[in-house]
Amino acid sequence: METILRSQTNEVRIDPLGPVVMIGEKINPTGHKKLAEALKEDNYEYVKGLAEMQIEHGAHVLDVNVGVPGLDEVALLPGIVKRLAADFDVPLCLDSGNPKALAAGLQEAPGKALVNSVNGEKDRLESVLPLVKDRQAAVIGLTMDEQGIPTDPERRLAIAEHIVNRAVQLGIPQQDVIIDTLVLTVGADQSAAKVTLRTIELVRERLGVNINLGASNVSFGLPDRQTINQAFMALAIGAGANCMITDPRKLAPTILACDLLLGRDPYGKRYIVSTRKRLA
Amino acid sequence: METILRSQTNEVRIDPLGPVVMIGEKINPTGHKKLAEALKEDNYEYVKGLAEMQIEHGAHVLDVNVGVPGLDEVALLPGIVKRLAADFDVPLCLDSGNPKALAAGLQEAPGKALVNSVNGEKDRLESVLPLVKDRQAAVIGLTMDEQGIPTDPERRLAIAEHIVNRAVQLGIPQQDVIIDTLVLTVGADQSAAKVTLRTIELVRERLGVNINLGASNVSFGLPDRQTINQAFMALAIGAGANCMITDPRKLAPTILACDLLLGRDPYGKRYIVSTRKRLA
Repeated sequence: METILRSQTNEVRIDPLGPVVMIGEKINPTGHKKLAEALKEDNYEYVKGLAEMQIEHGAHVLDVNVGVPGLDEVALLPGIVKRLAADFDVPLCLDSGNPKALAAGLQEAPGKALVNSVNGEKDRLESVLPLVKDRQAAVIGLTMDEQGIPTDPERRLAIAEHIVNRAVQLGIPQQDVIIDTLVLTVGADQSAAKVTLRTIELVRERLGVNINLGASNVSFGLPDRQTINQAFMALAIGAGANCMITDPRKLAPTILACDLLLGRDPYGKRYIVSTRKRLA
Repeated sequence: METILRSQTNEVRIDPLGPVVMIGEKINPTGHKKLAEALKEDNYEYVKGLAEMQIEHGAHVLDVNVGVPGLDEVALLPGIVKRLAADFDVPLCLDSGNPKALAAGLQEAPGKALVNSVNGEKDRLESVLPLVKDRQAAVIGLTMDEQGIPTDPERRLAIAEHIVNRAVQLGIPQQDVIIDTLVLTVGADQSAAKVTLRTIELVRERLGVNINLGASNVSFGLPDRQTINQAFMALAIGAGANCMITDPRKLAPTILACDLLLGRDPYGKRYIVSTRKRLA
Protein backbone atom coordinates (compact mmCIF):
# COMPACT_ATOMS: atom_id res chain seq x y z
CA MET A 1 0.00 0.00 0.00
CA GLU A 2 1.53 3.25 -1.11
CA THR A 3 1.23 6.63 0.59
CA ILE A 4 2.08 9.54 -1.68
CA LEU A 5 3.05 12.89 -0.16
CA ARG A 6 3.57 15.98 -2.30
CA SER A 7 5.29 19.34 -2.05
CA GLN A 8 5.00 22.12 -4.63
CA THR A 9 6.46 20.05 -7.46
CA ASN A 10 7.90 16.91 -5.84
CA GLU A 11 6.41 13.72 -4.54
CA VAL A 12 7.58 11.20 -1.96
CA ARG A 13 6.29 7.64 -2.14
CA ILE A 14 6.10 5.60 1.03
CA ASP A 15 5.84 1.96 0.07
CA PRO A 16 6.70 -1.27 1.94
CA LEU A 17 8.78 -2.46 -0.99
CA GLY A 18 10.61 0.82 -1.49
CA PRO A 19 13.32 2.53 0.55
CA VAL A 20 12.60 3.82 4.04
CA VAL A 21 11.30 7.40 4.06
CA MET A 22 12.96 9.72 6.58
CA ILE A 23 10.97 12.48 8.23
CA GLY A 24 13.37 15.01 9.76
CA GLU A 25 12.34 15.53 13.40
CA LYS A 26 14.47 18.52 14.34
CA ILE A 27 11.92 21.31 13.83
CA ASN A 28 10.39 20.61 17.22
CA PRO A 29 11.02 22.90 20.21
CA THR A 30 10.38 20.17 22.81
CA GLY A 31 13.69 19.92 24.65
CA HIS A 32 15.27 22.21 22.08
CA LYS A 33 15.71 25.54 23.82
CA LYS A 34 17.40 27.37 20.96
CA LEU A 35 14.52 26.59 18.62
CA ALA A 36 11.97 27.64 21.26
CA GLU A 37 13.74 30.99 21.51
CA ALA A 38 13.99 31.36 17.75
CA LEU A 39 10.25 30.80 17.47
CA LYS A 40 9.57 33.35 20.19
CA GLU A 41 11.72 35.92 18.40
CA ASP A 42 10.23 35.09 14.99
CA ASN A 43 13.74 34.07 13.90
CA TYR A 44 12.79 32.09 10.82
CA GLU A 45 16.40 31.83 9.69
CA TYR A 46 17.10 29.40 12.51
CA VAL A 47 14.18 27.21 11.47
CA LYS A 48 15.36 27.39 7.89
CA GLY A 49 18.82 26.25 8.93
CA LEU A 50 17.37 23.17 10.60
CA ALA A 51 15.40 22.37 7.46
CA GLU A 52 18.47 22.75 5.27
CA MET A 53 20.66 20.63 7.49
CA GLN A 54 18.12 17.81 7.57
CA ILE A 55 17.55 17.77 3.83
CA GLU A 56 21.30 17.84 3.33
CA HIS A 57 21.53 14.70 5.48
CA GLY A 58 18.80 12.86 3.63
CA ALA A 59 15.41 13.87 5.07
CA HIS A 60 12.62 13.33 2.51
CA VAL A 61 9.92 15.06 4.57
CA LEU A 62 10.16 17.70 7.30
CA ASP A 63 8.21 17.49 10.54
CA VAL A 64 7.08 20.96 11.67
CA ASN A 65 6.17 21.42 15.30
CA VAL A 66 6.04 24.93 16.78
CA GLY A 67 4.47 24.14 20.15
CA VAL A 68 6.07 26.45 22.69
CA PRO A 69 4.20 27.24 25.94
CA GLY A 70 3.01 30.83 25.70
CA LEU A 71 3.07 31.02 21.91
CA ASP A 72 -0.07 30.87 19.79
CA GLU A 73 0.36 27.86 17.51
CA VAL A 74 -2.72 28.77 15.49
CA ALA A 75 -1.06 32.04 14.49
CA LEU A 76 2.47 30.64 14.26
CA LEU A 77 2.17 27.34 12.37
CA PRO A 78 0.71 28.62 9.06
CA GLY A 79 3.40 31.28 8.73
CA ILE A 80 6.24 28.83 9.29
CA VAL A 81 4.62 26.28 6.95
CA LYS A 82 4.22 28.92 4.26
CA ARG A 83 7.83 30.02 4.49
CA LEU A 84 9.23 26.48 4.57
CA ALA A 85 7.06 25.52 1.60
CA ALA A 86 8.39 28.51 -0.32
CA ASP A 87 12.01 27.65 0.48
CA PHE A 88 12.06 23.85 0.27
CA ASP A 89 10.41 21.57 -2.22
CA VAL A 90 9.81 18.68 0.19
CA PRO A 91 6.50 17.55 1.70
CA LEU A 92 5.77 18.77 5.21
CA CYS A 93 4.51 16.84 8.21
CA LEU A 94 2.38 19.16 10.35
CA ASP A 95 2.83 18.22 13.97
CA SER A 96 0.53 19.70 16.58
CA GLY A 97 -1.76 18.72 19.40
CA ASN A 98 -4.02 21.62 18.47
CA PRO A 99 -6.58 20.85 15.72
CA LYS A 100 -7.03 24.56 14.97
CA ALA A 101 -3.32 24.95 14.39
CA LEU A 102 -3.39 21.92 12.09
CA ALA A 103 -6.34 23.39 10.16
CA ALA A 104 -4.57 26.72 9.76
CA GLY A 105 -1.26 25.07 8.85
CA LEU A 106 -2.86 22.79 6.26
CA GLN A 107 -4.22 25.87 4.46
CA GLU A 108 -0.66 26.91 3.72
CA ALA A 109 0.81 23.52 2.86
CA PRO A 110 1.03 22.95 -0.89
CA GLY A 111 0.63 19.50 -2.42
CA LYS A 112 -0.26 16.73 -0.03
CA ALA A 113 0.94 17.10 3.53
CA LEU A 114 1.14 14.61 6.36
CA VAL A 115 -0.65 15.29 9.66
CA ASN A 116 1.07 14.21 12.87
CA SER A 117 -1.07 12.82 14.44
CA VAL A 118 -4.26 11.14 15.53
CA ASN A 119 -4.52 8.28 18.00
CA GLY A 120 -7.36 6.04 19.14
CA GLU A 121 -8.95 8.76 21.32
CA LYS A 122 -12.44 9.63 20.15
CA ASP A 123 -11.98 13.41 20.52
CA ARG A 124 -8.79 13.41 18.55
CA LEU A 125 -10.21 11.26 15.75
CA GLU A 126 -13.29 13.47 15.50
CA SER A 127 -11.42 16.73 15.50
CA VAL A 128 -8.49 15.83 13.23
CA LEU A 129 -9.69 13.29 10.66
CA PRO A 130 -12.16 15.71 9.01
CA LEU A 131 -9.29 18.15 8.41
CA VAL A 132 -7.22 15.39 6.83
CA LYS A 133 -10.17 14.48 4.62
CA ASP A 134 -10.90 18.10 3.64
CA ARG A 135 -7.34 18.87 2.66
CA GLN A 136 -6.74 15.42 1.13
CA ALA A 137 -3.77 15.02 3.40
CA ALA A 138 -2.31 11.83 4.87
CA VAL A 139 -2.20 11.15 8.60
CA ILE A 140 -0.11 9.36 11.19
CA GLY A 141 -2.10 7.26 13.67
CA LEU A 142 -0.47 6.47 17.01
CA THR A 143 -1.36 3.16 18.66
CA MET A 144 -2.55 4.64 21.94
CA ASP A 145 -5.92 5.79 23.25
CA GLU A 146 -7.75 7.04 26.35
CA GLN A 147 -6.28 4.12 28.32
CA GLY A 148 -2.72 4.98 27.36
CA ILE A 149 -0.23 2.88 25.40
CA PRO A 150 -1.06 -0.84 25.60
CA THR A 151 1.75 -3.22 26.54
CA ASP A 152 0.13 -5.93 24.44
CA PRO A 153 0.86 -5.94 20.67
CA GLU A 154 -2.63 -7.24 19.85
CA ARG A 155 -4.15 -4.29 21.70
CA ARG A 156 -1.94 -1.87 19.80
CA LEU A 157 -3.04 -3.54 16.58
CA ALA A 158 -6.69 -3.16 17.61
CA ILE A 159 -6.18 0.59 18.06
CA ALA A 160 -4.45 0.79 14.66
CA GLU A 161 -7.40 -1.03 13.12
CA HIS A 162 -9.85 1.34 14.78
CA ILE A 163 -7.99 4.40 13.47
CA VAL A 164 -7.88 2.97 9.94
CA ASN A 165 -11.58 2.10 10.07
CA ARG A 166 -12.60 5.57 11.26
CA ALA A 167 -10.51 7.18 8.54
CA VAL A 168 -11.97 4.97 5.82
CA GLN A 169 -15.52 5.64 7.08
CA LEU A 170 -14.83 9.34 6.65
CA GLY A 171 -13.61 8.81 3.09
CA ILE A 172 -9.87 8.92 3.68
CA PRO A 173 -8.21 6.22 1.58
CA GLN A 174 -6.66 3.50 3.74
CA GLN A 175 -3.24 4.05 2.17
CA ASP A 176 -3.26 7.61 3.52
CA VAL A 177 -3.10 6.36 7.10
CA ILE A 178 0.39 5.61 8.38
CA ILE A 179 0.46 3.74 11.67
CA ASP A 180 3.04 4.66 14.30
CA THR A 181 3.50 1.65 16.59
CA LEU A 182 5.25 3.74 19.27
CA VAL A 183 8.15 2.61 21.39
CA LEU A 184 8.79 3.20 25.08
CA THR A 185 12.16 3.15 26.76
CA VAL A 186 13.74 -0.24 27.18
CA GLY A 187 15.56 1.03 30.26
CA ALA A 188 12.24 1.22 32.11
CA ASP A 189 10.65 -1.91 30.66
CA GLN A 190 12.77 -4.62 29.12
CA SER A 191 9.94 -5.81 26.88
CA ALA A 192 9.30 -2.31 25.44
CA ALA A 193 11.14 -2.83 22.16
CA LYS A 194 9.89 -6.39 21.70
CA VAL A 195 6.28 -5.23 21.99
CA THR A 196 6.89 -2.60 19.33
CA LEU A 197 8.63 -5.01 16.98
CA ARG A 198 5.79 -7.50 17.32
CA THR A 199 3.23 -4.73 16.72
CA ILE A 200 5.05 -3.76 13.53
CA GLU A 201 4.81 -7.35 12.28
CA LEU A 202 1.11 -7.54 13.12
CA VAL A 203 0.24 -4.21 11.47
CA ARG A 204 2.27 -5.12 8.37
CA GLU A 205 0.57 -8.51 8.14
CA ARG A 206 -3.01 -7.63 9.01
CA LEU A 207 -3.47 -4.03 7.83
CA GLY A 208 -0.81 -3.65 5.15
CA VAL A 209 -0.49 0.10 5.74
CA ASN A 210 2.82 1.92 6.02
CA ILE A 211 4.47 2.02 9.43
CA ASN A 212 6.21 4.95 11.04
CA LEU A 213 8.41 5.04 14.10
CA GLY A 214 10.35 7.56 16.11
CA ALA A 215 13.27 5.59 17.39
CA SER A 216 15.19 7.64 19.90
CA ASN A 217 12.92 7.16 22.92
CA VAL A 218 13.91 3.55 23.16
CA SER A 219 17.37 4.27 24.56
CA PHE A 220 16.43 6.98 27.06
CA GLY A 221 18.59 6.87 30.21
CA LEU A 222 21.02 4.26 28.86
CA PRO A 223 24.70 4.70 27.94
CA ASP A 224 25.79 4.91 24.27
CA ARG A 225 22.30 5.66 23.04
CA GLN A 226 23.44 5.86 19.44
CA THR A 227 24.35 2.15 19.30
CA ILE A 228 20.96 1.19 20.76
CA ASN A 229 19.10 3.52 18.40
CA GLN A 230 20.96 2.14 15.38
CA ALA A 231 20.28 -1.45 16.40
CA PHE A 232 16.63 -0.71 17.12
CA MET A 233 16.16 1.01 13.79
CA ALA A 234 17.57 -2.00 11.93
CA LEU A 235 15.39 -4.40 13.94
CA ALA A 236 12.32 -2.22 13.27
CA ILE A 237 13.03 -1.95 9.55
CA GLY A 238 13.60 -5.70 9.42
CA ALA A 239 10.21 -6.19 11.10
CA GLY A 240 8.50 -3.96 8.54
CA ALA A 241 8.69 -0.29 9.57
CA ASN A 242 9.31 1.85 6.51
CA CYS A 243 9.04 5.46 7.63
CA MET A 244 11.15 7.03 10.38
CA ILE A 245 10.78 10.30 12.23
CA THR A 246 14.37 10.81 13.13
CA ASP A 247 17.45 13.01 13.15
CA PRO A 248 18.90 12.11 9.74
CA ARG A 249 22.32 13.38 10.78
CA LYS A 250 22.49 10.58 13.31
CA LEU A 251 20.53 7.77 11.75
CA ALA A 252 20.48 8.16 7.98
CA PRO A 253 23.60 5.98 7.54
CA THR A 254 21.98 3.03 9.31
CA ILE A 255 18.70 3.51 7.44
CA LEU A 256 20.49 3.62 4.09
CA ALA A 257 22.51 0.53 5.04
CA CYS A 258 19.26 -1.32 5.82
CA ASP A 259 17.80 -0.36 2.44
CA LEU A 260 20.96 -1.62 0.78
CA LEU A 261 20.86 -4.91 2.70
CA LEU A 262 17.17 -5.42 2.02
CA GLY A 263 17.66 -5.03 -1.73
CA ARG A 264 15.92 -1.66 -1.99
CA ASP A 265 18.91 0.28 -3.25
CA PRO A 266 19.84 -0.86 -6.78
CA TYR A 267 23.62 -1.19 -7.12
CA GLY A 268 23.96 0.40 -3.69
CA LYS A 269 23.91 3.76 -5.40
CA ARG A 270 22.09 5.73 -2.69
CA TYR A 271 24.24 4.23 0.04
CA ILE A 272 27.50 4.82 -1.79
CA VAL A 273 26.72 8.38 -2.92
CA SER A 274 25.50 9.48 0.49
CA THR A 275 28.36 7.80 2.36
CA ARG A 276 31.00 9.34 0.10
CA LYS A 277 29.41 12.75 0.60
CA ARG A 278 29.27 12.26 4.36
CA LEU A 279 32.87 11.12 4.63
CA ALA A 280 34.24 13.68 2.17
CA MET B 1 17.17 -26.19 20.90
CA GLU B 2 20.22 -25.63 23.03
CA THR B 3 23.85 -26.24 22.10
CA ILE B 4 26.14 -26.49 25.10
CA LEU B 5 29.87 -25.93 24.66
CA ARG B 6 32.35 -26.50 27.47
CA SER B 7 35.86 -25.50 28.42
CA GLN B 8 37.81 -26.91 31.39
CA THR B 9 35.29 -25.70 33.96
CA ASN B 10 32.92 -23.35 32.12
CA GLU B 11 30.01 -23.83 29.82
CA VAL B 12 28.43 -21.65 27.15
CA ARG B 13 24.82 -22.20 26.21
CA ILE B 14 23.65 -21.28 22.72
CA ASP B 15 19.90 -21.00 22.76
CA PRO B 16 17.42 -19.13 20.52
CA LEU B 17 15.81 -17.56 23.57
CA GLY B 18 19.08 -16.56 25.23
CA PRO B 19 21.62 -13.87 24.39
CA VAL B 20 23.67 -14.07 21.20
CA VAL B 21 26.90 -16.01 21.63
CA MET B 22 30.01 -14.36 20.21
CA ILE B 23 32.80 -16.44 18.73
CA GLY B 24 35.95 -14.34 18.48
CA GLU B 25 37.26 -14.64 14.91
CA LYS B 26 40.67 -13.00 15.23
CA ILE B 27 42.83 -16.11 15.66
CA ASN B 28 42.85 -16.72 11.93
CA PRO B 29 45.89 -15.93 9.79
CA THR B 30 43.90 -15.42 6.57
CA GLY B 31 44.60 -11.81 5.64
CA HIS B 32 46.35 -11.30 8.99
CA LYS B 33 50.07 -11.20 8.20
CA LYS B 34 51.28 -10.60 11.75
CA LEU B 35 49.50 -13.69 13.02
CA ALA B 36 50.82 -15.75 10.12
CA GLU B 37 54.35 -14.70 11.07
CA ALA B 38 53.74 -15.34 14.75
CA LEU B 39 52.59 -18.87 13.92
CA LYS B 40 55.66 -19.46 11.75
CA GLU B 41 57.94 -18.33 14.56
CA ASP B 42 56.04 -20.30 17.19
CA ASN B 43 55.29 -16.99 18.91
CA TYR B 44 52.45 -18.15 21.11
CA GLU B 45 52.43 -14.89 23.06
CA TYR B 46 50.95 -13.10 20.06
CA VAL B 47 48.17 -15.66 19.78
CA LYS B 48 47.56 -15.36 23.51
CA GLY B 49 47.25 -11.58 23.17
CA LEU B 50 44.53 -11.99 20.53
CA ALA B 51 42.66 -14.40 22.80
CA GLU B 52 42.90 -12.03 25.75
CA MET B 53 41.75 -9.02 23.76
CA GLN B 54 38.72 -10.84 22.40
CA ILE B 55 37.63 -12.20 25.76
CA GLU B 56 38.09 -8.73 27.23
CA HIS B 57 35.68 -7.42 24.57
CA GLY B 58 33.07 -10.06 25.19
CA ALA B 59 33.93 -13.18 23.18
CA HIS B 60 32.34 -16.28 24.73
CA VAL B 61 34.14 -18.77 22.48
CA LEU B 62 37.43 -18.49 20.55
CA ASP B 63 37.80 -19.60 16.95
CA VAL B 64 41.22 -21.12 16.36
CA ASN B 65 42.51 -21.31 12.81
CA VAL B 66 46.22 -21.83 12.16
CA GLY B 67 46.12 -22.45 8.42
CA VAL B 68 49.22 -20.83 6.95
CA PRO B 69 50.58 -22.07 3.61
CA GLY B 70 53.78 -24.01 4.28
CA LEU B 71 52.97 -24.80 7.93
CA ASP B 72 51.81 -28.23 9.05
CA GLU B 73 48.41 -27.69 10.64
CA VAL B 74 48.31 -31.26 11.94
CA ALA B 75 51.38 -30.56 14.03
CA LEU B 76 50.50 -26.96 14.88
CA LEU B 77 46.82 -26.98 15.83
CA PRO B 78 46.96 -29.35 18.83
CA GLY B 79 49.80 -27.39 20.44
CA ILE B 80 48.00 -24.05 20.10
CA VAL B 81 44.74 -25.58 21.32
CA LYS B 82 46.49 -27.10 24.33
CA ARG B 83 48.12 -23.82 25.32
CA LEU B 84 44.96 -21.75 24.81
CA ALA B 85 42.94 -24.26 26.83
CA ALA B 86 45.48 -24.02 29.64
CA ASP B 87 45.40 -20.21 29.65
CA PHE B 88 41.72 -19.44 29.00
CA ASP B 89 38.66 -21.10 30.41
CA VAL B 90 36.44 -20.56 27.34
CA PRO B 91 35.29 -23.16 24.83
CA LEU B 92 37.27 -23.35 21.60
CA CYS B 93 36.05 -23.51 18.04
CA LEU B 94 38.52 -25.54 15.97
CA ASP B 95 38.64 -24.13 12.48
CA SER B 96 40.40 -26.08 9.76
CA GLY B 97 39.88 -27.44 6.28
CA ASN B 98 42.08 -30.39 7.21
CA PRO B 99 40.25 -33.26 8.97
CA LYS B 100 43.52 -34.63 10.36
CA ALA B 101 44.28 -31.29 11.96
CA LEU B 102 40.78 -31.23 13.44
CA ALA B 103 41.26 -34.76 14.80
CA ALA B 104 44.58 -33.84 16.38
CA GLY B 105 43.25 -30.54 17.73
CA LEU B 106 40.17 -32.16 19.26
CA GLN B 107 42.44 -34.49 21.26
CA GLU B 108 43.74 -31.46 23.12
CA ALA B 109 40.49 -29.54 23.55
CA PRO B 110 39.00 -30.04 27.00
CA GLY B 111 35.24 -30.05 27.60
CA LYS B 112 33.11 -29.84 24.50
CA ALA B 113 34.56 -27.97 21.54
CA LEU B 114 32.95 -26.67 18.39
CA VAL B 115 34.20 -27.80 14.97
CA ASN B 116 34.28 -25.25 12.17
CA SER B 117 33.05 -26.67 9.82
CA VAL B 118 31.27 -29.15 7.60
CA ASN B 119 29.15 -28.27 4.60
CA GLY B 120 26.91 -30.29 2.31
CA GLU B 121 29.83 -31.85 0.43
CA LYS B 122 29.88 -35.63 0.80
CA ASP B 123 33.64 -35.88 1.39
CA ARG B 124 33.58 -33.27 4.09
CA LEU B 125 30.60 -34.79 5.88
CA GLU B 126 32.20 -38.23 5.80
CA SER B 127 35.60 -37.09 6.99
CA VAL B 128 34.56 -34.62 9.71
CA LEU B 129 31.27 -35.80 11.25
CA PRO B 130 32.80 -39.02 12.67
CA LEU B 131 35.39 -36.90 14.52
CA VAL B 132 32.63 -34.72 15.94
CA LYS B 133 30.77 -37.83 17.05
CA ASP B 134 33.86 -39.49 18.59
CA ARG B 135 34.84 -36.43 20.60
CA GLN B 136 31.24 -35.51 21.43
CA ALA B 137 31.86 -32.08 19.99
CA ALA B 138 29.42 -29.72 18.28
CA VAL B 139 29.76 -28.68 14.66
CA ILE B 140 29.02 -25.76 12.37
CA GLY B 141 27.37 -26.70 9.07
CA LEU B 142 27.73 -24.25 6.19
CA THR B 143 24.88 -24.07 3.68
CA MET B 144 26.98 -24.81 0.60
CA ASP B 145 27.93 -27.96 -1.25
CA GLU B 146 29.68 -29.29 -4.37
CA GLN B 147 27.60 -26.88 -6.47
CA GLY B 148 28.69 -23.84 -4.46
CA ILE B 149 26.51 -21.48 -2.41
CA PRO B 150 22.90 -21.48 -3.65
CA THR B 151 21.27 -18.12 -4.32
CA ASP B 152 17.90 -19.59 -3.34
CA PRO B 153 17.01 -19.69 0.39
CA GLU B 154 15.06 -22.96 -0.03
CA ARG B 155 18.14 -24.59 -1.53
CA ARG B 156 20.28 -23.38 1.36
CA LEU B 157 17.68 -24.79 3.74
CA ALA B 158 17.82 -28.13 1.89
CA ILE B 159 21.58 -28.30 2.43
CA ALA B 160 21.14 -27.44 6.11
CA GLU B 161 18.58 -30.22 6.39
CA HIS B 162 20.92 -32.67 4.71
CA ILE B 163 23.76 -31.79 7.11
CA VAL B 164 21.49 -32.16 10.14
CA ASN B 165 20.17 -35.50 8.84
CA ARG B 166 23.65 -36.92 8.22
CA ALA B 167 24.76 -35.81 11.68
CA VAL B 168 21.73 -37.38 13.37
CA GLN B 169 22.20 -40.62 11.41
CA LEU B 170 25.73 -40.82 12.81
CA GLY B 171 24.47 -40.33 16.36
CA ILE B 172 25.25 -36.63 16.79
CA PRO B 173 22.36 -34.95 18.63
CA GLN B 174 20.55 -32.44 16.39
CA GLN B 175 21.16 -29.64 18.86
CA ASP B 176 24.90 -30.08 18.39
CA VAL B 177 24.66 -28.91 14.80
CA ILE B 178 24.78 -25.13 14.32
CA ILE B 179 23.86 -23.97 10.85
CA ASP B 180 25.78 -21.10 9.24
CA THR B 181 23.57 -19.58 6.57
CA LEU B 182 26.51 -17.74 4.94
CA VAL B 183 26.39 -14.28 3.47
CA LEU B 184 28.00 -12.99 0.29
CA THR B 185 28.88 -9.41 -0.42
CA VAL B 186 25.98 -7.12 -1.14
CA GLY B 187 28.25 -4.96 -3.28
CA ALA B 188 28.45 -7.77 -5.85
CA ASP B 189 24.85 -8.97 -5.57
CA GLN B 190 22.14 -6.75 -4.19
CA SER B 191 20.04 -9.69 -3.07
CA ALA B 192 22.91 -11.31 -1.12
CA ALA B 193 21.82 -10.17 2.34
CA LYS B 194 18.12 -10.77 1.66
CA VAL B 195 18.79 -14.37 0.69
CA THR B 196 20.70 -14.89 3.93
CA LEU B 197 18.02 -13.26 6.07
CA ARG B 198 15.34 -15.41 4.47
CA THR B 199 17.48 -18.54 4.97
CA ILE B 200 17.83 -17.68 8.66
CA GLU B 201 14.04 -17.46 9.00
CA LEU B 202 13.56 -20.78 7.20
CA VAL B 203 16.18 -22.63 9.25
CA ARG B 204 14.80 -21.20 12.48
CA GLU B 205 11.25 -22.18 11.53
CA ARG B 206 11.81 -25.59 9.97
CA LEU B 207 14.87 -27.01 11.75
CA GLY B 208 14.93 -25.13 15.05
CA VAL B 209 18.71 -25.44 15.37
CA ASN B 210 20.98 -22.59 16.37
CA ILE B 211 22.20 -20.29 13.63
CA ASN B 212 25.67 -18.87 13.21
CA LEU B 213 26.85 -16.12 10.93
CA GLY B 214 30.06 -14.34 10.08
CA ALA B 215 28.93 -10.87 9.21
CA SER B 216 31.81 -8.89 7.80
CA ASN B 217 31.80 -10.33 4.24
CA VAL B 218 28.56 -8.59 3.53
CA SER B 219 30.10 -5.12 3.26
CA PHE B 220 33.20 -6.03 1.25
CA GLY B 221 34.22 -3.26 -1.16
CA LEU B 222 31.73 -0.70 0.17
CA PRO B 223 32.42 2.52 2.09
CA ASP B 224 31.81 2.73 5.86
CA ARG B 225 31.73 -1.04 6.27
CA GLN B 226 31.14 -0.77 10.01
CA THR B 227 27.69 0.81 9.56
CA ILE B 228 26.67 -1.91 7.09
CA ASN B 229 28.01 -4.67 9.34
CA GLN B 230 26.18 -3.27 12.35
CA ALA B 231 22.91 -2.97 10.44
CA PHE B 232 23.29 -6.45 8.97
CA MET B 233 24.01 -7.95 12.35
CA ALA B 234 20.85 -6.43 13.81
CA LEU B 235 18.76 -7.59 10.83
CA ALA B 236 20.24 -11.10 11.13
CA ILE B 237 19.64 -11.28 14.88
CA GLY B 238 16.10 -10.03 14.34
CA ALA B 239 15.58 -12.79 11.76
CA GLY B 240 16.82 -15.44 14.21
CA ALA B 241 20.62 -15.76 14.07
CA ASN B 242 21.96 -16.27 17.59
CA CYS B 243 25.65 -17.01 17.26
CA MET B 244 28.17 -14.72 15.56
CA ILE B 245 31.73 -15.33 14.45
CA THR B 246 32.97 -11.80 14.67
CA ASP B 247 35.51 -9.31 15.92
CA PRO B 248 33.96 -8.48 19.31
CA ARG B 249 35.95 -5.23 19.50
CA LYS B 250 33.94 -3.96 16.55
CA LEU B 251 30.56 -5.59 16.88
CA ALA B 252 29.95 -6.55 20.52
CA PRO B 253 28.18 -3.22 21.27
CA THR B 254 25.60 -3.79 18.52
CA ILE B 255 25.10 -7.43 19.54
CA LEU B 256 24.59 -6.48 23.18
CA ALA B 257 22.16 -3.72 22.14
CA CYS B 258 20.14 -6.27 20.16
CA ASP B 259 19.98 -8.61 23.16
CA LEU B 260 18.79 -5.70 25.27
CA LEU B 261 16.13 -4.71 22.72
CA LEU B 262 14.95 -8.30 22.29
CA GLY B 263 14.41 -8.72 26.02
CA ARG B 264 17.32 -11.11 26.56
CA ASP B 265 19.26 -8.92 28.96
CA PRO B 266 17.37 -8.57 32.25
CA TYR B 267 17.52 -4.97 33.49
CA GLY B 268 19.99 -4.22 30.68
CA LYS B 269 22.74 -5.33 33.02
CA ARG B 270 25.06 -6.86 30.43
CA TYR B 271 24.64 -3.90 28.11
CA ILE B 272 25.20 -1.30 30.81
CA VAL B 273 28.18 -3.01 32.44
CA SER B 274 29.95 -3.66 29.15
CA THR B 275 29.24 -0.18 27.78
CA ARG B 276 30.51 1.54 30.92
CA LYS B 277 33.66 -0.56 30.79
CA ARG B 278 34.15 0.23 27.09
CA LEU B 279 33.63 3.97 27.54
CA ALA B 280 35.64 4.21 30.78
